[in-house]
Amino acid sequence: MLTIYGVYRSRASRNLWLADELGIPFKHVPVIQHYRLPDAAAPGAPINTRSPEFLKINPNGHIPSIEDDGLVLHESLAINLYLARKHGGPLAPADVAEDGQMTMWALWAATELETNALNVAYHRVGNPSGIKDAKIADAAVAALRAPFAVLDKALAATGYLVGGRFTVADLNVAEIVRYALPAPELFESAPRVKAWLAACHDRPAFKRMWERRESEPA
Amino acid sequence: MLTIYGVYRSRASRNLWLADELGIPFKHVPVIQHYRLPDAAAPGAPINTRSPEFLKINPNGHIPSIEDDGLVLHESLAINLYLARKHGGPLAPADVAEDGQMTMWALWAATELETNALNVAYHRVGNPSGIKDAKIADAAVAALRAPFAVLDKALAATGYLVGGRFTVADLNVAEIVRYALPAPELFESAPRVKAWLAACHDRPAFKRMWERRESEPA
Repeated sequence: MLTIYGVYRSRASRNLWLADELGIPFKHVPVIQHYRLPDAAAPGAPINTRSPEFLKINPNGHIPSIEDDGLVLHESLAINLYLARKHGGPLAPADVAEDGQMTMWALWAATELETNALNVAYHRVGNPSGIKDAKIADAAVAALRAPFAVLDKALAATGYLVGGRFTVADLNVAEIVRYALPAPELFESAPRVKAWLAACHDRPAFKRMWERRESEPA
Repeated sequence: MLTIYGVYRSRASRNLWLADELGIPFKHVPVIQHYRLPDAAAPGAPINTRSPEFLKINPNGHIPSIEDDGLVLHESLAINLYLARKHGGPLAPADVAEDGQMTMWALWAATELETNALNVAYHRVGNPSGIKDAKIADAAVAALRAPFAVLDKALAATGYLVGGRFTVADLNVAEIVRYALPAPELFESAPRVKAWLAACHDRPAFKRMWERRESEPA
């Protein structure tokens, strides 16, 4: 039995989307980020990333984590690669070469995209107005131009990242590219990225994930 | 045939060390970081991360990359996971659960350790004196205390990260923890991390890699 820890409004969205794509039944424990609560340690506070019961699962105090038949894993992108490898099918690597490429794209997205993409999301939309900093957002957009060009080029041959089909590599990278949506100028300069992300977001499992996410308190 | 692109004084050290551990013959192309050259674009400049011939291999313009029987891969940690999976043996994942854990540790090290560990290396040792900033180094050390505690705890059971033996997970994480060596206070507070890194560095293949690295121009 698979348990996924983490609210939809977190990186757990990646795992919740993939589990639906793969048709895996799972238990969902909506652990929330401690910094989103007025007092995470108060008696009766919802389970959060500083709750003792969750720190026993993940001593890093971050979401998501999973437990799968006794195996505990953290790191959303690694969790998705694990679930895809375990359950197989078209989203999973077909061989060691595809697995290498899918692992590469996960690390590429985490190191070349994520910090800057989150700065776009936070500083153009997410942060309260006093904390929003247009300069940070603009610097992040500038830094994202090179990796967006790399991604656009990688999509040229088939419209997908690995093996000419939608895989866990697309899902992992798409969930990070999504944070940059408040910078439409990046997508206008990378039309294949724009079309690819739209195709990813048109998948029924993404739409179900998104609907559940939107129904959570902001 | 395997080709590894990148000088020893770069993240390519990870791949060069692993290839030796696995006993894989390879061709080494010592691509250097463009910012280490006075004029990377000058005629006769050594092959570097902005050389047109290398950008054809890796459009990100970063090292390392590999080419292995026609498969081109980037991202040092993903390359190591790929090489271990392909060649097997005790350093490789024995099953999908171990693969999940090894992939998790790679992403954990890239996202929870690397930026701060590099700031320790740069701002305590590597940077020229005018650019060294003790405040940046100290903030990085403070941020590394939590992940060092997680790592110390993970090593408690067997002294290794996955499967009770030295694997590609240890090698990948050790190469990032190494950057934090100029902060001995971190290792004094995490004695298992200190002993584990010493054991990693005592391996003959690490020593050979290090000797070749030291023989490169600083």
